[in-house]
Amino acid sequence: MRIGLDVGGTKTDAVALAADDSVLARVRRPSGWGPDATVRGILGAVAELTADPRAAGRAVASVGIGVPGQVDGRGARVVHAVNLGIERLDLAERIEGALGVPVRVENDVKAAAAGAWRLHGGEGTLAYVNVGTGIAAALVVDGAVWRGSRGAAGEVGHVSVDPAGPPCACGQRGCIEALAGGASVAARWGTAATHPVRAVFDAADAGDERARALRRDVAAGIAAAVRILVLTTDADTVVLGGGLTALGPRLTDDVVAALHDSAAGSAFLRSVAVAERLRVLPAGSPAAAVGAALVGAEEEVLSRG
Amino acid sequence: MRIGLDVGGTKTDAVALAADDSVLARVRRPSGWGPDATVRGILGAVAELTADPRAAGRAVASVGIGVPGQVDGRGARVVHAVNLGIERLDLAERIEGALGVPVRVENDVKAAAAGAWRLHGGEGTLAYVNVGTGIAAALVVDGAVWRGSRGAAGEVGHVSVDPAGPPCACGQRGCIEALAGGASVAARWGTAATHPVRAVFDAADAGDERARALRRDVAAGIAAAVRILVLTTDADTVVLGGGLTALGPRLTDDVVAALHDSAAGSAFLRSVAVAERLRVLPAGSPAAAVGAALVGAEEEVLSRG
Repeated sequence: MRIGLDVGGTKTDAVALAADDSVLARVRRPSGWGPDATVRGILGAVAELTADPRAAGRAVASVGIGVPGQVDGRGARVVHAVNLGIERLDLAERIEGALGVPVRVENDVKAAAAGAWRLHGGEGTLAYVNVGTGIAAALVVDGAVWRGSRGAAGEVGHVSVDPAGPPCACGQRGCIEALAGGASVAARWGTAATHPVRAVFDAADAGDERARALRRDVAAGIAAAVRILVLTTDADTVVLGGGLTALGPRLTDDVVAALHDSAAGSAFLRSVAVAERLRVLPAGSPAAAVGAALVGAEEEVLSRG
Repeated sequence: MRIGLDVGGTKTDAVALAADDSVLARVRRPSGWGPDATVRGILGAVAELTADPRAAGRAVASVGIGVPGQVDGRGARVVHAVNLGIERLDLAERIEGALGVPVRVENDVKAAAAGAWRLHGGEGTLAYVNVGTGIAAALVVDGAVWRGSRGAAGEVGHVSVDPAGPPCACGQRGCIEALAGGASVAARWGTAATHPVRAVFDAADAGDERARALRRDVAAGIAAAVRILVLTTDADTVVLGGGLTALGPRLTDDVVAALHDSAAGSAFLRSVAVAERLRVLPAGSPAAAVGAALVGAEEEVLSRG
């Protein structure tokens, strides 16, 4: 059975997949900090999965690990995983050494994209947008994650859509991430709230004008990311995932409305039907861990060709 | 041998490829207007190629046809090819019926992307930007053209990068195409010159302030398209092609300078190294026709896969 883990800064989500890609068993546990604790956490999660009755008797065929950082092109090493306290780690080798099965590491947004593709019918081309602290994207075609030169996710968050927009931490102005990323919203709202974007949405609902403006920016920024991905790639489906989707329809209805607004004056944009392609991962979706499992088994996929 | 044609509004470029993808023979002829003349033109070009001494004795294995329009997902029908005077044509069937070999039709920008990929080493992921009357893009991974839902090229030209920018024919403001597309530049400059962008560049060189502003917009718009493709897809290589590249270094130096300028205040953008990934097709490149030939043979590629 294929195992996949999504190792986040706070928690690790791990799944064991059946042959039809359904989830046999699932484990969630806090993530460790730093290289050694991360490795221990991964091995611990795998042990829990293999001990699960529903996985009884099945051998581990492969392990895929999604991480919030850059991964070298061959899926072996993670670098700059700031949220894990890891600057550089030959993670595949450490896990392979312990388990004796093929291991592949992937950027977490890319892994989530692979999972989203599978969970949304497993056909055609898909763009995945992760909206959380930052905003990043990944592309999938025929189940294969599109890989570029940096081993990181697509940085659609750093596309500037307004030269007069708010300053971004990256040095530009009007970046999608400056408008809609959780960290940026928190900084602009000036709060230390645990869920800053929720706090802004609540204040907006209560009539605060500054919060209402920030809320509009969040919807406009995410809508811009979705629109840019559709215009650039013509992907059949665009899936939204990540921490901000916990806001549910409060966020996604706003995003759809922003997409329709932007198309109001453009028959061309309406014909592109951006909003119609949009899907949202449900809260608690195992997409990221499922995708990691699929990536981990890529050697198999390629040979099945 | 595989045959590929790039059927443009003005001229048709046709090549016959050897097994190693080099060009055995090449024919250029004016394009016909309307469905019947287009079919006749294609068959005429194929006849000329097969009559070429360098193609002697080789049977036609497949034909790929790049067209400036939308192509249905199965490569059979072209629709909305305004520049060819074709609203709808079952082109693959017409050519297959005449030649008795497999035929596949593709959007011309996508075909050019496939050719550019092959001509630039045939590895990794590539984004292709066509700068001409309009601005469009296509993606290639492992030789396969990324296909989305509309059967058209990626409409990166209709990404808005400035809500206060010039109005675009599509109804939005500040679109990349409004800044840098040939038709938009011609309309803004107010000229009926045959090569409006060249006229603007010449006037800018001569010191005309309005021309200098338009010239800056052209460079900024193309730079934005390149930057957005890199940020969104992290493609290993970005290749620039299309009519405006006939301007040579006058254009491409400006684009590279605009890319460096935009990265001046952003260590992040510098790390993404956008300009370093940029290549330009040389004048007279057969990329579009070569790409069409590769697309035409896709059945073979998939079975070799």
